Amino acid sequence: MAVIIASVLFLLSAHDVTAKSAADYAMERANLLAEESELQVGGNIRLTDEENKANDILMRYKHDEVDDSFNNPNHFNFSRHYFTYKNDIIDSKVYQIIRRMPKGAALHVHSSLILSADRMLELTYLDHLYACFADGDLKLHFSERVPQQPCTFKWQLISELRNNTENIQAFDDNLKSHFTMYSDKEKDYEGDINYVWKRFEKVVNVIKGLVEYRPAAEKFLYEALKEFYEDNVMYVELRSGLKALYELNGTRHDKVYMPRLYHRVAKQFKEDYPDFVGIKLIVTKQRSAGIDQIRNTINLARIVKQELPEMVAGFDLVGQEDLGKPLIDLLPVLSDAMEDLNFYFHGGETNWFGTVSDENLVDAILLGSKRIGHGYALIKHPSLMAAVRNRDIAIEVNVVSNVVLSLVCDVRNHPLATYLALGMPVVLSSDDPGAWGADPLSTDYYIAFVGVASKKADLRMLKQLVINSIRYSSLDNKNKLDMYRLLHRKWNVFIEDVIRIFG
Amino acid sequence: MAVIIASVLFLLSAHDVTAKSAADYAMERANLLAEESELQVGGNIRLTDEENKANDILMRYKHDEVDDSFNNPNHFNFSRHYFTYKNDIIDSKVYQIIRRMPKGAALHVHSSLILSADRMLELTYLDHLYACFADGDLKLHFSERVPQQPCTFKWQLISELRNNTENIQAFDDNLKSHFTMYSDKEKDYEGDINYVWKRFEKVVNVIKGLVEYRPAAEKFLYEALKEFYEDNVMYVELRSGLKALYELNGTRHDKVYMPRLYHRVAKQFKEDYPDFVGIKLIVTKQRSAGIDQIRNTINLARIVKQELPEMVAGFDLVGQEDLGKPLIDLLPVLSDAMEDLNFYFHGGETNWFGTVSDENLVDAILLGSKRIGHGYALIKHPSLMAAVRNRDIAIEVNVVSNVVLSLVCDVRNHPLATYLALGMPVVLSSDDPGAWGADPLSTDYYIAFVGVASKKADLRMLKQLVINSIRYSSLDNKNKLDMYRLLHRKWNVFIEDVIRIFG
Ligand SMILES: [Zn+2]
Ligand SMILES: [Zn+2]
Repeated sequence: MAVIIASVLFLLSAHDVTAKSAADYAMERANLLAEESELQVGGNIRLTDEENKANDILMRYKHDEVDDSFNNPNHFNFSRHYFTYKNDIIDSKVYQIIRRMPKGAALHVHSSLILSADRMLELTYLDHLYACFADGDLKLHFSERVPQQPCTFKWQLISELRNNTENIQAFDDNLKSHFTMYSDKEKDYEGDINYVWKRFEKVVNVIKGLVEYRPAAEKFLYEALKEFYEDNVMYVELRSGLKALYELNGTRHDKVYMPRLYHRVAKQFKEDYPDFVGIKLIVTKQRSAGIDQIRNTINLARIVKQELPEMVAGFDLVGQEDLGKPLIDLLPVLSDAMEDLNFYFHGGETNWFGTVSDENLVDAILLGSKRIGHGYALIKHPSLMAAVRNRDIAIEVNVVSNVVLSLVCDVRNHPLATYLALGMPVVLSSDDPGAWGADPLSTDYYIAFVGVASKKADLRMLKQLVINSIRYSSLDNKNKLDMYRLLHRKWNVFIEDVIRIFG
Repeated sequence: MAVIIASVLFLLSAHDVTAKSAADYAMERANLLAEESELQVGGNIRLTDEENKANDILMRYKHDEVDDSFNNPNHFNFSRHYFTYKNDIIDSKVYQIIRRMPKGAALHVHSSLILSADRMLELTYLDHLYACFADGDLKLHFSERVPQQPCTFKWQLISELRNNTENIQAFDDNLKSHFTMYSDKEKDYEGDINYVWKRFEKVVNVIKGLVEYRPAAEKFLYEALKEFYEDNVMYVELRSGLKALYELNGTRHDKVYMPRLYHRVAKQFKEDYPDFVGIKLIVTKQRSAGIDQIRNTINLARIVKQELPEMVAGFDLVGQEDLGKPLIDLLPVLSDAMEDLNFYFHGGETNWFGTVSDENLVDAILLGSKRIGHGYALIKHPSLMAAVRNRDIAIEVNVVSNVVLSLVCDVRNHPLATYLALGMPVVLSSDDPGAWGADPLSTDYYIAFVGVASKKADLRMLKQLVINSIRYSSLDNKNKLDMYRLLHRKWNVFIEDVIRIFG
């Protein structure tokens, strides 16, 4: 064998024609693979003995799941649309382990789309809720009397409709279907990206009528934090527009009221669940808005930040990136704002390459964005990849969102695979989990870990991703340290649980 | 404005707090984009004045096509399966220009799947062709009398069936449908990767019965070269198993006969079309074969190479990579063979990450493969990417093949986008164009150029890809030089044509 492989080295290096043994080949091979193993996210982490035990358990299940799919590709859910396997996830042992894992922070979620449809439905049991069912659309509004807003059919009290229906379950199921894009009919979720975004925005508009009602907003946020807490998320940075919440009599609060309410509800939640770290807001504005509206929102963000400095992490622009204004068009107002606000821009949430939307990535970086939302298109930009790495800008990856919002179907084609392999500064998040029935964070972790990452990626990668979520949060160093300490305690319990329950 | 953007630099570099003007921002932005523009495939090419004129024409059409899709994603064909837009391609001006472009070499095509279904059909008009239609499958065999091979129904003469049919067109259409995977019914081409490969192998088996008949093989190769020539491909490296061709009386030639026949037909073709450069063979064996069979084929390749040294480029293993033997299992026989045969291994034609099939990439590189077929999974392997670049191993990318064989649907997710952006050593090819009704090379070039590459990628990228196809061919330096000269003449005619016809 040693002689047979003699010529390997000749081809490996034209200058060195020494004979090369099979052992040398094996070593060179192992070195190449080890180099990649160390480079990947989590590659530098050393596990404790206990962690190694838990890791063995985790990896046995992961390999079973991957091998089953490798040998029977028709079993491999992740090559298909998320909606086709959404309800099967709960059966996975890997998922069950991840669900128990303390996941640190969720850094990219939009405030009005973080609550499951089941909990949203409960909000419709609050009194005085009117509905306008017209042309398949639904508008909701709380009001003392019939709402003044236009309705092409007629405003009806939900409580009356519900009392008069033969089948409350069917009535509620229909109502619930307006709170989610989930459907088991393929024709509902296939279609071009504009079609899918229109469905998404329909959900947003239905929910708007509920969550802008002050008492509903309180309940909404509290319940949402509870879902995050139960998913073992310890801290949340909420992207949120500043909405003028309304009361039953139609009174509108000013836009600073909402962050005050969020602050108050989060404080209450933290009193009830002392091992929850808290929330911060990233104030957002639609990127399709006029430049003056955007300037106004930035000024509002400043006012809120002055009043509640710990609540405001920074500013972002939201909405379908291909259709909205590119950042470069907003340079005057944004370069002004960066003096006293941190940016957390969405960037590269597009499949296009070389278009104005794609170039938002350049401006997000040059405007000093602390993190980049999605960065899906970043993989096509080597210079920007280098800049992101050198400036340590975290990429907030939302795999399920990218499937539902039509960027990718087979998640094995998601650029996250490469970002993980390169050891890029990545955090996982869920964008709008309520809008597609995903867990606050576990679903995204699970799919990223089993569907996207290398078969060999293990607990070290998961741990690094959790650490990243704290490291790249907008918490100050003191609060980060506290959170690391809390994570440490929770992590040890988690490791014991894995060994005890799954071992 | 200068003051407004004053803080940009502060964020760009924590150490340098000098004020930065809008002009500086614009310059930094332009520099980043220019860096990427230069890095990409073709980024170093300087166009002549005439080429610039042609490029302006080309890019006007390209931008029209991309802008139309960007503004109306429902117009964007490439996000869907190739079969949904296959027949619309001909209307594209960009396609029409690319079709005229001299495309150098096709370096990754499999010999039995290079002829269009229309031309395949003509082979069924040769005398003495028997068909066995059974269970939706079709077997074909030329024979003096009824073939001896088993047929669960019965062997029938195609000529008789055709004479007896009411509708020859319908008969021929049905026959033709067995030569291609193309279908306008989605259910025929959706399904998991194993299902799709089974459909593919069905086509392979039908065609086998035709092209192993010696007179059909001659006609087949001649007609195929004509299609390549008409597509402005100048040189072809054919991956081919060494088949024992048969005569009408059932005689089987030995396996060296086939390359002799290929040599003779190619020589004839070159006499008829003197500006065609020629063909070489990459001898292949199924990767599912036993190690002894693989060793036998390698020995045969050596014998052929001795007799026809100019015909044999090297050796490769073929078939669905996830299901076949990994290269590492064949190390003893392959490390022996590399002493006197060049390798052109398929590698990373998989969506899996961290599996044995994925690791074929490591062994393809360490075994000194001159080029890598597909390299689809390479993007997930930073160390292997670096090795491929350092060793100047070309990646043979076949975009349409990867769509049809289920690796990717929206081609904007194809890793080629990143390989092009990184200036990797890429060549474009078409794998099995006959099996899905693509042009020998133009379809793949067109989809790569408009669907995968940056909107800004222009004639320089196309020119570099054509140059790469010669540079990474297995031609010796003298023949490469001759081919560059021929390309130069054809290229100038092409540039004039673009200006004259499309300007
Ligand atoms: Zn988002
Ligand atoms: Zn191939």
